Amino acid sequence: MAGYKKYKKEDESSYALGITLTFEMLSHRPQCCERVYVHSSMKHNETYDRLMDLCRRTGTEVVASDKVFRVLSDKENCYVIGQFHKFSEDPDPKRPHIVLVNPSNAGNLGTIFRSALGFGFEDIVIIEPAVDVFDPKAVRSSMGALFSLRVRDYRSFEEYRQKYEKGREFFPFMLQASRPMKDIHPSECYSLIFGNEATGLPESYLHIGTPVIIPISQKIDSLNLPVAASIAMYAASSASGQFQQS
Amino acid sequence: MAGYKKYKKEDESSYALGITLTFEMLSHRPQCCERVYVHSSMKHNETYDRLMDLCRRTGTEVVASDKVFRVLSDKENCYVIGQFHKFSEDPDPKRPHIVLVNPSNAGNLGTIFRSALGFGFEDIVIIEPAVDVFDPKAVRSSMGALFSLRVRDYRSFEEYRQKYEKGREFFPFMLQASRPMKDIHPSECYSLIFGNEATGLPESYLHIGTPVIIPISQKIDSLNLPVAASIAMYAASSASGQFQQS
Repeated sequence: MAGYKKYKKEDESSYALGITLTFEMLSHRPQCCERVYVHSSMKHNETYDRLMDLCRRTGTEVVASDKVFRVLSDKENCYVIGQFHKFSEDPDPKRPHIVLVNPSNAGNLGTIFRSALGFGFEDIVIIEPAVDVFDPKAVRSSMGALFSLRVRDYRSFEEYRQKYEKGREFFPFMLQASRPMKDIHPSECYSLIFGNEATGLPESYLHIGTPVIIPISQKIDSLNLPVAASIAMYAASSASGQFQQS
Repeated sequence: MAGYKKYKKEDESSYALGITLTFEMLSHRPQCCERVYVHSSMKHNETYDRLMDLCRRTGTEVVASDKVFRVLSDKENCYVIGQFHKFSEDPDPKRPHIVLVNPSNAGNLGTIFRSALGFGFEDIVIIEPAVDVFDPKAVRSSMGALFSLRVRDYRSFEEYRQKYEKGREFFPFMLQASRPMKDIHPSECYSLIFGNEATGLPESYLHIGTPVIIPISQKIDSLNLPVAASIAMYAASSASGQFQQS
């Protein structure tokens, strides 16, 4: 246990930095929890007791160590770190999917996960090459939503499509599309598809399903990716009535 | 000209880091441009000629210096920096406003500016205390949209309200509200109001205008601020018909 190393994409486990994320990890992915690190500055209050209780019930090892915090966290007030085994789960063939083609920014990815869970999209498909879904930055910006989602990487869109196209509507979001978002009324089983932050989706996606545009003024080139994806999720979930406020 | 210093909030000028932002600065705020710095690695191609032409036409001084880049930019491929005088402009009393109460993150602020310009909202109100609108991070994440907006800080919401309330509808966005976004059909003259990233709007805003909620699943606590603001702008601009795709 002597040497802690900075997180790398090749590692088999990743980290939930902070107590809030660690609670999400323990609550939603108990089978993936490996270890919880607690800093000596962590107060032994009610929250601490709840954390210890949850670790006990999930059979998660607790390690007191300050050193690991210096290696993994750059935030001053981070006193708990959860270590978890990376997971992967097939998307539900009967539910709507969010498909991210070649996303390149971990923070953006997490923000999309957070919105997805908020609008009732629990199945995420990542088309490679792509940024690491388990980068601690993605885990953090997801606010822990990652632990409640089914996420799977595919080597190509074709590989994903062949497996899931039966009865499914595909909506690629593209600035070259002519159909505005508000004219779309998806059924229960559909995929919202988004491209890379800088380049968007390749032209070839104009021939897949129904390409859709979120109309914007000519004064900007494009919307920020998490913004565009979240608007699409909001509008699609409202239009399909799949999600009602609870 | 010897010593360049890192940007500080108290400074009277700020910086557009990169050639794209510098073009936006020169095109949309020519009267505020002070100086354009060019790095020795900048190729003297067609883009360079266009930049020099624009500097000439706006009467903007061009300075060849590599040192300033080491102080102001942490990106490797930044070869042009635009320096501009900070500006402030009263919002148009007849147009819809975006009101940001105590925003704390510069990157978020810029992302909201980008969406605002994209959805036809060109009047921005900032209620203090707030993050610096002219932080180079905000300028960058706005993708230059900042230069096309009317932005003004107010010391309190009351100060802003007293000046602009005539004939104006106020819509504070709050998780405690019961009216969902889709039931709102704003007139031409309205304000969408958003709170701080971590704390949202204070309870007192429940008594201002018509509080609105973007319905989300109980599985998340809240949406990311630029995401929530952008969804509201998308929905309001669609509902009011103020913005049509051009």
